[in-house]
Amino acid sequence: MKLDAQQLAELDKAYRTLLVNSLTGFKSANLIGTTNAGGHNNLAIFSSLFHLGADPALIGMVSRPHSVTRDTLENIQETGYYSINHVNSDIYRQSHQTAARYPADTSEFNATGLDEEWIASFPAPFVKQSRIQLGLKYRGSLPVELNDTEIVIGEICLVNIKDDIVCDDGYVDIESADTVAVSSLDTYHLTRTLDSLSYAKPGQDPQSIAAKRLSSHEENS
Amino acid sequence: MKLDAQQLAELDKAYRTLLVNSLTGFKSANLIGTTNAGGHNNLAIFSSLFHLGADPALIGMVSRPHSVTRDTLENIQETGYYSINHVNSDIYRQSHQTAARYPADTSEFNATGLDEEWIASFPAPFVKQSRIQLGLKYRGSLPVELNDTEIVIGEICLVNIKDDIVCDDGYVDIESADTVAVSSLDTYHLTRTLDSLSYAKPGQDPQSIAAKRLSSHEENS
Repeated sequence: MKLDAQQLAELDKAYRTLLVNSLTGFKSANLIGTTNAGGHNNLAIFSSLFHLGADPALIGMVSRPHSVTRDTLENIQETGYYSINHVNSDIYRQSHQTAARYPADTSEFNATGLDEEWIASFPAPFVKQSRIQLGLKYRGSLPVELNDTEIVIGEICLVNIKDDIVCDDGYVDIESADTVAVSSLDTYHLTRTLDSLSYAKPGQDPQSIAAKRLSSHEENS
Repeated sequence: MKLDAQQLAELDKAYRTLLVNSLTGFKSANLIGTTNAGGHNNLAIFSSLFHLGADPALIGMVSRPHSVTRDTLENIQETGYYSINHVNSDIYRQSHQTAARYPADTSEFNATGLDEEWIASFPAPFVKQSRIQLGLKYRGSLPVELNDTEIVIGEICLVNIKDDIVCDDGYVDIESADTVAVSSLDTYHLTRTLDSLSYAKPGQDPQSIAAKRLSSHEENS
């Protein structure tokens, strides 16, 4: 398939949405947990999270103004805090279901069968079934005028990783936590490690880069 | 592992970098191809691309000012155009190698063995070995003051997908193109489809959401 700008603009809307959502490659799948001043909890799946920096530890994500994720943005801005919870293969169906347009007074936790977990005094709910849970403090939003979205930026202030999947060098073996990847809007994938490569330096032959670390799944692949 | 903000801040820098880069989940792996006014070509791997919108078709990515990706940003701002090329399992080693700090007059195409491809009159080089190639027009940057990075935004103006992997509904079967996913800074993964789920609606039982589409790999999984 070959399309220029004009042909892309003329595509049927639903077709174009699935196509364009496929084009960045594999995406993360995370549940964002929030609450509001009235104590109503909200949970929504996002595939737009991206690593923004390690020091300070910043994560960005895209919020669309007219989507179900609008409640999430309002709660984040109201309370200043939210949770990020990796979607794994045990809960991808319930996680996908959080994208349904529930009435504002319905908690997606109750509606989908995912369980709230409250950790220490962190002021937003986590997903109990998630093995990698992060607590974020809201640091601000960047409005994107080109398409009326907002890029929400938060700083990690709590890390809770269940099980023993953090390697000696800090790498988290998210594959062994059965964290899923997403393609386009609707397809969920498990992964199989190809390689962990050492730091790239000029002059080395790409085909002989040393493997850096054995995955805990190595023996199965 | 459980860390609060203070413990996270006190981690060894290299450890923290691998850890925090793992926490958003799986990431895309894309090669960004650029050129400058002098005709020098540049190629760099990015794992920070994210879908920003389907109409207009916008993609965002993070550029760090003091990294090897700085050449990429300068070329994008100088020429107004760049290419995005999916990394697949045949070229992940060469792609990783583009992250090495080559001298400014070295083309990463030559240094890593990836081949330039020029498509129609598009003014930036593509990677011949990539099966999913996009041409982008630069639309602007958002500076992130919190960590001195920039979010670069481009609009897709050329789509070139090799092979027959676009489904009837617009979904691109990136798994069958052997597009890889990345975790943290250094680990590359292939995928195996779990499911394609239909649009989420209130009231449906998550465990009985219909599968929407059979992957072309379905028979192998």
